[in-house]
Amino acid sequence: MVPLTVPANKKGEYLKNWALATKQTGRLLIFAADQKVEHLNDDFVGTGIAPDAADPEHYFRIIQSAKCGVMAGHIGLISRYGADYPNIPYIVKLNGKTNLVKEEVRDPFSSLWLTVEQVVAFKASSKLPIVGVGLTVYLGSHDEAEMLQTAAQTVLRAHQNGLLVVLWMYFKGKSTDKKFSSDPQKVAGAAGVALSLGADFAKVSYDYKTTSPEKWQRVSVAAGRTGVLFVGGEKQDPQKFITSVEKQLTLSGSRGLAVGRNIYQHPLPTAVGLLKALGALVFQKVSAKEALKFLPRK
Amino acid sequence: MVPLTVPANKKGEYLKNWALATKQTGRLLIFAADQKVEHLNDDFVGTGIAPDAADPEHYFRIIQSAKCGVMAGHIGLISRYGADYPNIPYIVKLNGKTNLVKEEVRDPFSSLWLTVEQVVAFKASSKLPIVGVGLTVYLGSHDEAEMLQTAAQTVLRAHQNGLLVVLWMYFKGKSTDKKFSSDPQKVAGAAGVALSLGADFAKVSYDYKTTSPEKWQRVSVAAGRTGVLFVGGEKQDPQKFITSVEKQLTLSGSRGLAVGRNIYQHPLPTAVGLLKALGALVFQKVSAKEALKFLPRK
Amino acid sequence: MVPLTVPANKKGEYLKNWALATKQTGRLLIFAADQKVEHLNDDFVGTGIAPDAADPEHYFRIIQSAKCGVMAGHIGLISRYGADYPNIPYIVKLNGKTNLVKEEVRDPFSSLWLTVEQVVAFKASSKLPIVGVGLTVYLGSHDEAEMLQTAAQTVLRAHQNGLLVVLWMYFKGKSTDKKFSSDPQKVAGAAGVALSLGADFAKVSYDYKTTSPEKWQRVSVAAGRTGVLFVGGEKQDPQKFITSVEKQLTLSGSRGLAVGRNIYQHPLPTAVGLLKALGALVFQKVSAKEALKFLPRK
Amino acid sequence: MVPLTVPANKKGEYLKNWALATKQTGRLLIFAADQKVEHLNDDFVGTGIAPDAADPEHYFRIIQSAKCGVMAGHIGLISRYGADYPNIPYIVKLNGKTNLVKEEVRDPFSSLWLTVEQVVAFKASSKLPIVGVGLTVYLGSHDEAEMLQTAAQTVLRAHQNGLLVVLWMYFKGKSTDKKFSSDPQKVAGAAGVALSLGADFAKVSYDYKTTSPEKWQRVSVAAGRTGVLFVGGEKQDPQKFITSVEKQLTLSGSRGLAVGRNIYQHPLPTAVGLLKALGALVFQKVSAKEALKFLPRK
Amino acid sequence: MVPLTVPANKKGEYLKNWALATKQTGRLLIFAADQKVEHLNDDFVGTGIAPDAADPEHYFRIIQSAKCGVMAGHIGLISRYGADYPNIPYIVKLNGKTNLVKEEVRDPFSSLWLTVEQVVAFKASSKLPIVGVGLTVYLGSHDEAEMLQTAAQTVLRAHQNGLLVVLWMYFKGKSTDKKFSSDPQKVAGAAGVALSLGADFAKVSYDYKTTSPEKWQRVSVAAGRTGVLFVGGEKQDPQKFITSVEKQLTLSGSRGLAVGRNIYQHPLPTAVGLLKALGALVFQKVSAKEALKFLPRK
Repeated sequence: MVPLTVPANKKGEYLKNWALATKQTGRLLIFAADQKVEHLNDDFVGTGIAPDAADPEHYFRIIQSAKCGVMAGHIGLISRYGADYPNIPYIVKLNGKTNLVKEEVRDPFSSLWLTVEQVVAFKASSKLPIVGVGLTVYLGSHDEAEMLQTAAQTVLRAHQNGLLVVLWMYFKGKSTDKKFSSDPQKVAGAAGVALSLGADFAKVSYDYKTTSPEKWQRVSVAAGRTGVLFVGGEKQDPQKFITSVEKQLTLSGSRGLAVGRNIYQHPLPTAVGLLKALGALVFQKVSAKEALKFLPRK
Repeated sequence: MVPLTVPANKKGEYLKNWALATKQTGRLLIFAADQKVEHLNDDFVGTGIAPDAADPEHYFRIIQSAKCGVMAGHIGLISRYGADYPNIPYIVKLNGKTNLVKEEVRDPFSSLWLTVEQVVAFKASSKLPIVGVGLTVYLGSHDEAEMLQTAAQTVLRAHQNGLLVVLWMYFKGKSTDKKFSSDPQKVAGAAGVALSLGADFAKVSYDYKTTSPEKWQRVSVAAGRTGVLFVGGEKQDPQKFITSVEKQLTLSGSRGLAVGRNIYQHPLPTAVGLLKALGALVFQKVSAKEALKFLPRK
Repeated sequence: MVPLTVPANKKGEYLKNWALATKQTGRLLIFAADQKVEHLNDDFVGTGIAPDAADPEHYFRIIQSAKCGVMAGHIGLISRYGADYPNIPYIVKLNGKTNLVKEEVRDPFSSLWLTVEQVVAFKASSKLPIVGVGLTVYLGSHDEAEMLQTAAQTVLRAHQNGLLVVLWMYFKGKSTDKKFSSDPQKVAGAAGVALSLGADFAKVSYDYKTTSPEKWQRVSVAAGRTGVLFVGGEKQDPQKFITSVEKQLTLSGSRGLAVGRNIYQHPLPTAVGLLKALGALVFQKVSAKEALKFLPRK
Repeated sequence: MVPLTVPANKKGEYLKNWALATKQTGRLLIFAADQKVEHLNDDFVGTGIAPDAADPEHYFRIIQSAKCGVMAGHIGLISRYGADYPNIPYIVKLNGKTNLVKEEVRDPFSSLWLTVEQVVAFKASSKLPIVGVGLTVYLGSHDEAEMLQTAAQTVLRAHQNGLLVVLWMYFKGKSTDKKFSSDPQKVAGAAGVALSLGADFAKVSYDYKTTSPEKWQRVSVAAGRTGVLFVGGEKQDPQKFITSVEKQLTLSGSRGLAVGRNIYQHPLPTAVGLLKALGALVFQKVSAKEALKFLPRK
Repeated sequence: MVPLTVPANKKGEYLKNWALATKQTGRLLIFAADQKVEHLNDDFVGTGIAPDAADPEHYFRIIQSAKCGVMAGHIGLISRYGADYPNIPYIVKLNGKTNLVKEEVRDPFSSLWLTVEQVVAFKASSKLPIVGVGLTVYLGSHDEAEMLQTAAQTVLRAHQNGLLVVLWMYFKGKSTDKKFSSDPQKVAGAAGVALSLGADFAKVSYDYKTTSPEKWQRVSVAAGRTGVLFVGGEKQDPQKFITSVEKQLTLSGSRGLAVGRNIYQHPLPTAVGLLKALGALVFQKVSAKEALKFLPRK
């Protein structure tokens, strides 16, 4: 369903982006490349990380081969490699910050790197299939007010240009507690804020260790017509990961997934297989067992 | 009466909005849906809250059935459901914040999500009957100055476009005291500020427990030609609530009401009945006894 | 004399406003209505305050009857009552704040509610005789720099549109001392700043208790071609008040007065008489004895 | 030499201003009137200050009679007296602050009162011979970054309009030490910053008590093609002052002087004589002995 | 390779700048003149520094004679000397700050002196061969978010105008540790941020004392298609310096160098020889032994 913030003359563009991003299903599989900024080099070189991950082009090779998923990344990454990967659907991540600034120095704040209008111009001049924009919001942070303003403006302007919007909704800052991210009631609140902002999708936290998938359904209900994507989180065993995602989709009511480390920290063949498996789960709604067949044999 | 900040060529539009919002009475009944942001999920799932309230569409179903009241909500909520509820009069709430940030981290501040001009454009493209805009001001907060500026600009620009303005006037922050909200002299001051800003209506606090309805009339006097709406507050027993509202309207000089939890935390039939009862009190000036007949029989 | 910041094509407009505001004398009598914001309801309801003062329309009734003085108030007040009082000369007060925020939370800061250009547009569409704009500056406050910038811009833009400018120059904030307001040397400095900003008139503090009227002349000298208006301050006995004002005008070199509580806290007849008396002092330069004849007989 | 930031079509205007300001010598004599803001009334009324100084018009009378020097002052002063003194070359001081705010409350910060473009418009409408703009920068202050930005913009925009730029370069704030102003190496750094910003002239501190004039030459070398003006500072004995300035010009490599208190705290005849003496030193390069002949006989 | 942020009609301009800056090699040799601001006069006059360095023109004489390298400096320096050195390729450094403000007063922050669009206009009117812009980013600083925003905007706007962008990526502020600059993993993170921002080149720190050149290759890998330039740092013995640079280029994977003190603190002949030697290393890929032949004989 097209939100009313999309004007009549941009409905076609919005539906085209929606079809490309969600493969006509209303579900979304995001392959996130924004951790080059968020986590510096720590997710790319280190123990348990495949050497392939050191090269930024690894991202592009995976998604190109898997032929599914939308790549969410910062403008520089897309502009430097996009000419060689012109058929990947992209979501331009509009803000970003490193993990360096300590909370006692300043509460987490991520400011806008570029405007929606600049993305629209970049899409036109680059001819890349950019389907939407992404933005992170830190609820509870000292600068929450400014980030909510930016988020509302981003949604409005993206819709006015027929683009989708995904909001990364996190709890951060001295006023918050780490437990919030494991509490379905709190996360449901974050999803409700994303709906109030008008997001198409909200990426929110998920904790399979402390709370059953059924309890996380509260989040999807609170989100109303905004689709919920739970985070992929730290690298897990592929089998366990696929099984967990299946539960999110079937029991927690999510409408897709945003994944990063669980894909790109593997060598290329495993990474491609995993992404294909997720695509099958999300778009063809196969079982975890079926999906796991996409993984390369050991 | 049309304020002089409405230019001649927008008087018709202003009067049309005024007629639709107030049913030609100059009185206003606001059904507030902004608590999805302000209170996260805590008002929607929990003890004493009907399961219906978990779904954001509950708001729309109530007001659609009750056929009275103006829905005040954030842009995302309106844009996602508005196409299915095209005949509800809406007030777009222009700012909002969660209840997470602690006062010792930052005094309460709510920044502008979108401008009046963007609301005007949204009204034109969505064809929804948007009658006005709403804004919260935290008097006494560290950022009071910036919020007063935003409020003044909002009133001026709304009037220039023929829209009504409702200001939520609260005392918040380290310089204030909880007692202010129960003190008619302080609240009268807040109402006077709303008048000085040029608001059509001011939503202010009310405390029936400590102070008689007659004493609250001081607030309406201080507000002059700006209409006073007292807050609905926490969910009460429906009978007591209706009786209290009657007193506000007859003894305290209010020109309507802004209500939220006292409606939407009930199951749909009770919620619809209550909203109808309030409509009868506000617009037909019936007695509380008469109004209570709208409630479903137990 | 017309300052050079008034362009040639606006000299006529400036002189027209000057004539209306000063009755061709170069002297100014301001009746200030901005205390609805600055002091909340405390100046309007309380011990020693006439019940008339509770109703905001009291201001308008007084000045309408007295037929002298310029009303300085915020946009909302003027826009809500102006249609019924279309012949009062108005000065739109451009900023304002409440008295709630404590100095230890934030140094006094008052931000711009509307721009000069918006006042010009409001004047044109409302057809009210708006003769100028007013602005408060807190010298010594943490945000002095920002307020000086706003003041300079206000003067420049007002003059470019042929409007007069009155600056309220106060010492406020943790870096200042209450004694500054009673010290002619310090107040002379404030007047010099107002001149450097290009104000037509500067409203500054005055203390008749500690310092003789002759010593306050230093302020008028330092102000050069900017006219000095001393504050009216707290309500005094009418006779003493009139006598004190006479001394300001004759011995301290002031070019008028800004008055508020000493007028509006009286019942209508006394208030009207007092304002007439001040008009006679300022514009006809009568003696205090003559002026007192305007007061109603007891 | 015309800097490349002056576009081809403004070279004529720049050279005209340069000729008028420097009397074709490339040297500059500034008579500074910005202390009405910076020092409030303390430089104008007090022990050792001639009564003439209390009246702001004293500035204009001096420079009018001396027929040399450029008056640097704030817009208000120039706009209020300029019509009577239409032949004085003016430098409009673009920022300013009082001396009230304590360093523990906020590090020194002076914000822009008006833009270069507004000065250009004022020059056109007033027809005053405005030759340039002035700006103060506080190196080492908490807000250094913002002031450097403003300075760079000011230089660029002034040159784009053919105006000269003088930067007042001081060390201020909790990170700095009073000794910096007496240290040629530190002051040379400030001069180098002024060059990097593109200023035509930099006004910097000078201390004849602790350091020989020869050592201050390091400042002029570091400034490269930006001309160095040393401060006049506190009022000294006229003879000693003239002798000190001669050394600055001949031994320290300065290209002029900025003077204030050493002129205007004298009665008109002495002040005029002193300004003439400085003009002879700066423009005709006479000896101190010759220059002193301009002083009135005792 | 031209990034996609360069629009089609600016590809020619970008390639022309690329060819001029990198001598068709994709490698870059920056001669940095921004230390006039960053280090005040301390790098220019003092022990071990040639007297030539005191004069700002020293920079221009060196690069003019060496006939290689791009000069990176602030606008003022370029505008004051550029007319005499019209054939040097320039990179305009867009921000800058002194080393005065202490971290306990404010975390390092450098704000934008001028916009890319102003550089483009300056290039057009000055006709200087400006090939790009430079900007410093302090990762980990309190104001990191604002600086990342500025950096992203700078890259986007520079590319839209066909200019190259070099980002100086440092770790600074209370949240960071001095060790970060010596840690290839951390510096690799900074390089990855530069890539995510879309920079053409990233200037990053290097520590030959604690870590082998081979380990620094991690940085070049993480930077992907963004070229890495290691800092020159403090003045070293010329022979050791040249040898170290050779290792950076061959073993660490750098694509050039940014050098300052190691050139300009020498007298003109040595400085010219050193710059020529670096040019031979970077562009002709000669050995350190060959390069050292450019140095003047002792």
